[in-house]
Amino acid sequence: MAAQADRHPSSSHYDIVIVGAGPVGLMLSTCLARWGYKIKHIDNRAEPTPTGRADGIQPRSLDLLRNMGLKSAIMAHKPARVYEVAFWDPPKTGNGIVRTGTWASCPSFIDARYPFTTLLHQGLIERVFIADLEENGVQIQRPWTIKGFTSNEKENPEYPVTVDLEHVDGTDKETIKAKYLFGGEGARSFIRDQLKIGIKHKDPIAYVWGVMDGVVETDFPDIKMKCTIHSEHGSIMVIPRENNMVRLYIQIASSTDPDFNPRKTATAEEVQASAKRILQPYSIEWERLEWYSVYPIGQGISDKYTLDHRVFLGGDACHTHSPKAGQGMNTAFLDALNLAWKIHAVEAGFANRKLLETYEPERKDVAETLLSFDNKYAKLFSQRPPAANEVAAASAQAAGGQKKEEEGENQFISTFKESCEFTSGYGVFYKANALNWSPSHPAQSHVVHPKNTKLIPGRLLANADVTRVVDANVVHLEQEVPLNGSFRLFVFAGKPSVTAQALRDLAANMAKKNSFYMAYARADADRVSHHERHNPHSHFFTVCTVFAAARPDVEIARDVPALLARYRDHVYADDRWDRHVPDAKACAHAKMGLDEDKGGVVVVRPDGYVGIVVGLQEGSATADALNGYFGSFCTKKLGETQAQL
Amino acid sequence: MAAQADRHPSSSHYDIVIVGAGPVGLMLSTCLARWGYKIKHIDNRAEPTPTGRADGIQPRSLDLLRNMGLKSAIMAHKPARVYEVAFWDPPKTGNGIVRTGTWASCPSFIDARYPFTTLLHQGLIERVFIADLEENGVQIQRPWTIKGFTSNEKENPEYPVTVDLEHVDGTDKETIKAKYLFGGEGARSFIRDQLKIGIKHKDPIAYVWGVMDGVVETDFPDIKMKCTIHSEHGSIMVIPRENNMVRLYIQIASSTDPDFNPRKTATAEEVQASAKRILQPYSIEWERLEWYSVYPIGQGISDKYTLDHRVFLGGDACHTHSPKAGQGMNTAFLDALNLAWKIHAVEAGFANRKLLETYEPERKDVAETLLSFDNKYAKLFSQRPPAANEVAAASAQAAGGQKKEEEGENQFISTFKESCEFTSGYGVFYKANALNWSPSHPAQSHVVHPKNTKLIPGRLLANADVTRVVDANVVHLEQEVPLNGSFRLFVFAGKPSVTAQALRDLAANMAKKNSFYMAYARADADRVSHHERHNPHSHFFTVCTVFAAARPDVEIARDVPALLARYRDHVYADDRWDRHVPDAKACAHAKMGLDEDKGGVVVVRPDGYVGIVVGLQEGSATADALNGYFGSFCTKKLGETQAQL
Repeated sequence: MAAQADRHPSSSHYDIVIVGAGPVGLMLSTCLARWGYKIKHIDNRAEPTPTGRADGIQPRSLDLLRNMGLKSAIMAHKPARVYEVAFWDPPKTGNGIVRTGTWASCPSFIDARYPFTTLLHQGLIERVFIADLEENGVQIQRPWTIKGFTSNEKENPEYPVTVDLEHVDGTDKETIKAKYLFGGEGARSFIRDQLKIGIKHKDPIAYVWGVMDGVVETDFPDIKMKCTIHSEHGSIMVIPRENNMVRLYIQIASSTDPDFNPRKTATAEEVQASAKRILQPYSIEWERLEWYSVYPIGQGISDKYTLDHRVFLGGDACHTHSPKAGQGMNTAFLDALNLAWKIHAVEAGFANRKLLETYEPERKDVAETLLSFDNKYAKLFSQRPPAANEVAAASAQAAGGQKKEEEGENQFISTFKESCEFTSGYGVFYKANALNWSPSHPAQSHVVHPKNTKLIPGRLLANADVTRVVDANVVHLEQEVPLNGSFRLFVFAGKPSVTAQALRDLAANMAKKNSFYMAYARADADRVSHHERHNPHSHFFTVCTVFAAARPDVEIARDVPALLARYRDHVYADDRWDRHVPDAKACAHAKMGLDEDKGGVVVVRPDGYVGIVVGLQEGSATADALNGYFGSFCTKKLGETQAQL
Repeated sequence: MAAQADRHPSSSHYDIVIVGAGPVGLMLSTCLARWGYKIKHIDNRAEPTPTGRADGIQPRSLDLLRNMGLKSAIMAHKPARVYEVAFWDPPKTGNGIVRTGTWASCPSFIDARYPFTTLLHQGLIERVFIADLEENGVQIQRPWTIKGFTSNEKENPEYPVTVDLEHVDGTDKETIKAKYLFGGEGARSFIRDQLKIGIKHKDPIAYVWGVMDGVVETDFPDIKMKCTIHSEHGSIMVIPRENNMVRLYIQIASSTDPDFNPRKTATAEEVQASAKRILQPYSIEWERLEWYSVYPIGQGISDKYTLDHRVFLGGDACHTHSPKAGQGMNTAFLDALNLAWKIHAVEAGFANRKLLETYEPERKDVAETLLSFDNKYAKLFSQRPPAANEVAAASAQAAGGQKKEEEGENQFISTFKESCEFTSGYGVFYKANALNWSPSHPAQSHVVHPKNTKLIPGRLLANADVTRVVDANVVHLEQEVPLNGSFRLFVFAGKPSVTAQALRDLAANMAKKNSFYMAYARADADRVSHHERHNPHSHFFTVCTVFAAARPDVEIARDVPALLARYRDHVYADDRWDRHVPDAKACAHAKMGLDEDKGGVVVVRPDGYVGIVVGLQEGSATADALNGYFGSFCTKKLGETQAQL
């Protein structure tokens, strides 16, 4: 899609103006830059975050970073990895603190590739994105700020947004015409204020937090673990960091305090003295103090994420909450990702502009869940700590899966399970809409959502190992299509002997002129290099075919119809053992809940969430159902006329 | 050891002169630079290898690169990964070629972390080392060459080697005094010639090979696999490469040909035409030819690797063989590693100078094995291809382990198994000597080599997952100590309740003044930062303690004596499941063949090979045995005198 960048009427016309180069702005910018959009990206800071701020990358976010090819650059900084959380409390008798339990931060019942939280200073994470942006020709313009904007689609349907930008010292100004404006400016959003969008406070309680990064010398045994410590002298949260650092969070004041003052503060020395008291009988001394900050924070959520679907907000501009669950950066990433691919689908001509209307409900609902969770999580920490045997029982019961749930779980177990899924990022889901099929979706067919499917539209595709046929490489199936803005069509093809005709029929129907697939064929399809792996025919789809067979038994030339075989690097054998389905013969099929003989087709949105699951059947039913699904949000009428030919 | 670099009498005095910046020279240089030695490193090429040459990194070499922190830089180049080898032969009837079988290049019976061969252009690999060298202050001096050298220990016991170096165009000269000289100049070694060291030809047959790297368009289905193709038109070997490239090896002539001429050659066009004939009925067209070379090669092995243990040879200067098994670079790495840590042990004052005498026998024996293997491997490829069921049977039987061997294996199975172990690098082993304990070793004690131990001195430590106690990180135990030149002492501590006294006794005996451990204590031990993880007390040892217990049940302050607890980042819980020992409770203990209750102590050489295994017993027997082991090659008298105190 690289040609996009040249298609603007003048040098002051852009696809998008992005304000703020924190996690949300950088993720949006990085995606759109890779997909060929022309971006003006400003930030009012002279440099990326030098110290402190957010630092927790959750397991699912690491999957996302890997899918973008950025994980190794992050890991090269040798971040700390949190596998377990420890609870420390006053002993039943006597003084001081004792460890009362630990739990896994991402227990094995969650099928995570990276079952740990990655902790790294936000500035280093920002720099990984900035380096990638520079490779794609985007420089963050610093220190610049936004002074005003207007949006009028009637006056200028193509570039409705006008934005006034200014150097922070007022020495330079620019006026930009853009298709979109994005506010990723953090909690104090100028754009949100200008739009007069209010903030709703979910929980009326506000807090003042102190946060301190530094290097310490201590005999406290869990200094390299995430810890929640309650003592008679107060409470503290310990989070390990890269380079032998540790972060301490201390709650300085709460609006429930009798003498609450939101401007209450504390010096670094006071917080250090407080930490020393709380950690008794252990000692703690600071060798170096890297960063210290006190900030009041309440739970807030923006009433709207956009008014006109041209000017959007995301990240902390839309939701604020306590730092305890380490969700801020992760939620910001997903806000940006959700918006990025939708803008791309609309601007590249694939999706109806109404698609953009799904951004706010999808992401606002996640933010609401985050805030409720933040409350529950806070209570879970501040109330009686869970006993070790309870944690073990919860973990074991959760590992048992669906069945146990029906038998009923106690409050602690369900909160534990939900909290693990949520904090890992694997629990984030989107509700039913045009993208996420449900029984009320326009696509209605007996082949949609086959019985026993474990996949749920709006939730992530299950992780699964498979063997790539052409080179016998063992790969992570969910990572095989890079974050290229395309829908991912996973054709689970079952047994070749069973599905041969169904596969041929699917390919034949996809090849029809008005199918979802060919309606958006590349104009240059006949000149595409044979090395192109992901988008040989269309920029809107990448197709993977997975057989329930051993790799040497799959012969692409014999078993795969030409249209699918064109993606020869995306043909796989489902022949790897998986501990989550130890008795399955074809584990990837089994994890999706698809028949190991008959297979099924899974549509995955560009951001990795399942859109729809369709049975793989002979005749046109499978392709018809896919036409129905994509037809509900794309720009062209699909299928029907051709189906009669 | 960084202080070493400043301890030379003049700027023209060096610890070592290294000639040749290919894999062997770079590995040696990189190790010694990290350990603080002053290095003069020259190469007669103006630039690193621009194209072609060696490109295969075997599974065990990737472990080594990871241990050096260089793996991610290698993998960032997106090398090809070979998991399987395919065999193509003429069909029983008709023309052309058919696939007659495939086998895993590193089958699951080998407990490899990375069960594939990594293929990347040698120049990119060299650059990863060069970047690391530059971080440690070493620049390769190019294009410079060696003009002559002398070595006279009597005349100058400290810097016995004098080396004359010259810019290749003769415009500049230098004379260097050094402790050592290393020739890593490849098959045509000036240093070897000057020393008048001959080459023995193991196999009298010589070959002329053509090798071609390029990008092709083909319908041959296995172009991304390693393939051996025999046809009526000749034979070819296919090896996938990074960036859609493929390497083809074609044997142009053999000394068994009636009209053999070692100077026989072929043009790139002739080789391409030949490849087209061999691949019929498949088509192949070249889009780009990156590199083409023809070279005669015979199997040769240098009579000596050194004459005086000051001037050493390694890599292709010592052994040449066919490129088919992809062993060249891997053998070069291990030559260099073997020599590097021994030079370090001697120069840092730990080991007796006689230690250097183990370099030649250890590495020459491996080269002999490589050459025999190269012959067998060539025959395995050139004879009747193994049937798929034979490969499956061999793999299954091999997976069964020891017992099946006793039942007898056929020739094919044993060659298959041996070849997989050898090509993966996991089969390389060193014979008994002072470093590799055997019943004839001076260290004799009833606690040495406990019954049931699966570890064999001279072979690699088994790979095992464990949980680090301080931060609950799941880690690869064998990777926990970086390649720091230190011996690695793995104290498998069994059950804390059983071994408490034995651990205390071991620590107490290690703490004695003349123990192997304290005899080489750091002079600055009381000023070492508490963040120092690997060498708090001594530069010659890093100690890891592994309990057969669940992580939350290990309390360092309670269970680990202070001397061992000083390595708090090296205390582990052996609580991870392992598919190779599915029924074990403590899998790492089980994989080593150590008692899950009583444990045992494993000494691992700085290069990862097991030195000795000793039982963990109450009293002084364990430490006495270790004193005996180290006393056999170190500079001081250990143990006895103190044992009486």
